[in-house]
Amino acid sequence: MPTASLLVVGTEMLDPARADRNGPLARERLAGIGIPLSQIVRVEDREEAIAAAVSSALASSEVVIASGGLGPTGDDLTREGAARSLGRGVVPDEEWLAALSRRLEERGRPITEAGRRQALVVEGAEAVPNPAGLACGSWIESGGRVLVLLPGVSAEFAAMLDGFVLPRLRERFPSRPSVRTIRAIAAGLPEVTAEPALAPWYRRQGVAVSILPESGVLRITVTIASPPAEDAAALEAEARADLERGLGRHLVSLDGASLAERLGEELLARGWSVAVAESCTGGRAAHRLVSVPGASRWFLGGVVAYSNEAKSEILGVSPGLIAGHGAVSEPVALAMARGARDRFGASCGIGITGIAGPEGGTAEKPVGLVHLAAVVPGEESARRLVYGADRASVIELASNYALYALWSLVRGRIPA
Amino acid sequence: MPTASLLVVGTEMLDPARADRNGPLARERLAGIGIPLSQIVRVEDREEAIAAAVSSALASSEVVIASGGLGPTGDDLTREGAARSLGRGVVPDEEWLAALSRRLEERGRPITEAGRRQALVVEGAEAVPNPAGLACGSWIESGGRVLVLLPGVSAEFAAMLDGFVLPRLRERFPSRPSVRTIRAIAAGLPEVTAEPALAPWYRRQGVAVSILPESGVLRITVTIASPPAEDAAALEAEARADLERGLGRHLVSLDGASLAERLGEELLARGWSVAVAESCTGGRAAHRLVSVPGASRWFLGGVVAYSNEAKSEILGVSPGLIAGHGAVSEPVALAMARGARDRFGASCGIGITGIAGPEGGTAEKPVGLVHLAAVVPGEESARRLVYGADRASVIELASNYALYALWSLVRGRIPA
Repeated sequence: MPTASLLVVGTEMLDPARADRNGPLARERLAGIGIPLSQIVRVEDREEAIAAAVSSALASSEVVIASGGLGPTGDDLTREGAARSLGRGVVPDEEWLAALSRRLEERGRPITEAGRRQALVVEGAEAVPNPAGLACGSWIESGGRVLVLLPGVSAEFAAMLDGFVLPRLRERFPSRPSVRTIRAIAAGLPEVTAEPALAPWYRRQGVAVSILPESGVLRITVTIASPPAEDAAALEAEARADLERGLGRHLVSLDGASLAERLGEELLARGWSVAVAESCTGGRAAHRLVSVPGASRWFLGGVVAYSNEAKSEILGVSPGLIAGHGAVSEPVALAMARGARDRFGASCGIGITGIAGPEGGTAEKPVGLVHLAAVVPGEESARRLVYGADRASVIELASNYALYALWSLVRGRIPA
Repeated sequence: MPTASLLVVGTEMLDPARADRNGPLARERLAGIGIPLSQIVRVEDREEAIAAAVSSALASSEVVIASGGLGPTGDDLTREGAARSLGRGVVPDEEWLAALSRRLEERGRPITEAGRRQALVVEGAEAVPNPAGLACGSWIESGGRVLVLLPGVSAEFAAMLDGFVLPRLRERFPSRPSVRTIRAIAAGLPEVTAEPALAPWYRRQGVAVSILPESGVLRITVTIASPPAEDAAALEAEARADLERGLGRHLVSLDGASLAERLGEELLARGWSVAVAESCTGGRAAHRLVSVPGASRWFLGGVVAYSNEAKSEILGVSPGLIAGHGAVSEPVALAMARGARDRFGASCGIGITGIAGPEGGTAEKPVGLVHLAAVVPGEESARRLVYGADRASVIELASNYALYALWSLVRGRIPA
């Protein structure tokens, strides 16, 4: 069974705390075609270091995918490092160079010497076309192994992986196991609560489970590889049933659809629309909704009301309510949700008010306190949460929870 | 100059989304004694894979620190993998074994066969005492290089790193360099345009440069290690001057401060405030501003006006203007910026209107078209941009550019 190594090139990636945006996608996609990951290497932008990492990865895996270091500048050295490892040179891919020059000329910017570097490939490589950027990749076969160089920019990496690399790998390694993948999304529950639903699956033959918590949303992936698993179809059905039973009303989707996407679908199915009023999340909840393609069919708008005046003047929250309960309170969250709904003429509303920190907390209303409200025709809900997290995390968590609260209410359920 | 590699051992670490808890500590501590990290390798719990990773790390770094895989169970194979890489065996450290047996007996639990594994070291190694757990580590010198095996449990890793490994490394490598780091942020220019300012620095002795583009913002890091660099203080001053001269009005900070942070400081210095009107970016620009701690001192609020009605009713954009120029146009972007300013009673405003896609484009107004406007007391600016990117990237790029446009205007400059 072929295995893969990932090389993540970039001196900035030597900060172990820095997230690798491409790795999770590559891992999931490779597992999906039966090529599991066996090694991940982060290496600095230095030609010798890249060459050494490429050699070592090629010695231990049939497939090596490198991301990063294909840009125009002098610290983009992945091509040179890979070439050195293979004892080859780097050469321009004439076809990509011509296309690149044309594209830049059309924008009135003749290609520069640095820009030409983006058309370089390892000698003997096939250029991997980049539909989302300027640098082509390299597909290199050597000693029965495959080395692929892709850009680090996530949109480009993803487009080239899906559009070129995976189809080629399928052809190149025809005897891979068949793999079934379930991508579940769950919301409104902590990782530890989701675990019992998955525990029995951790040690099943041929089954791999991963749970990735992302600001209150769980991304659960179950892959079933056959062989070694027997009767993968039955196993998959069993796993889906277990996820449905175990995650219950927290299960957003079994097909990877996001909470915002599912909320949009539920609204659309009822002919409903939504508007958002936010203070501490500062537009993040609206941004999550707008990130769904076609959101204009059910999202009408939002207000970021940071000051009490804005809450009153734009959202119509009564100054007396704010004076009586404080800006961070359940009545104000509800009034904000209703205000956003009415202001934009929507059917539903979301209200979020809280203290994201690091300052502004009191003993009674600590940093991390958030009141969230959701209103739909005929029903309202409100929830008080206290997050023990930093400012950025409170914003991420609270905006996700607000979407979860509205999604639950729209489906006729009070969020827990 | 000695460099270090980190080996992170554990099949669960092949999920690239999984955080490495020990890496950031090790990186910081090693940098602090002048031993920069040059590679991070995550490898599965398999003896051959660990052996290959150890060999390759020892070939490229003077110091290799492995974490994980020292426990009692059969899938804890770091000792065996390291031993195989060096052509040695594993042997019990009699002193640690005796101490371990005593400790367990005192708790009324005689040591088991599995438990004894925790006293194993690589042949010829010195046992690294573990003040917080049961497994000792291994300190191995071979061919002028140092290989250290530490447990993955964070409290144990940290105690053994600080208590044993760092003092030893200081002794072992007395002539380590001192390191100076410049973290620059630049905005409103592509990576290729920043390159000339940095080109002379790529090949200077002791200097390392990295440029990381993040949605229209460049994160530039220059590190100067002395030795090999001579007179690091003068070099640092020269590099700062070069960055200032070369990046000019695009240089946001030389201390890592973000565009939003700098914008907030500039506003505060003038006693100004800002409000934001967004359509296609859906709240992302407001969210970027609110992400700055203390933003409430200069950020008053925002409106996400997705529909024409919202643009007119909430922001006061004249319906005739929208009918005449279209919602995605320079006059509407300017009217939105002014509308947000006036609605919230702010000194400054941002207006963003565009077509993030994937649908809604026409030949005249394609997907990716964004009109951005910034208004400050006494001056206004507008800019038309066409991004060749997906929905999520258009939102990221345009929201950053809007911040850059306002920051430039606030400082008395028209953004280019």
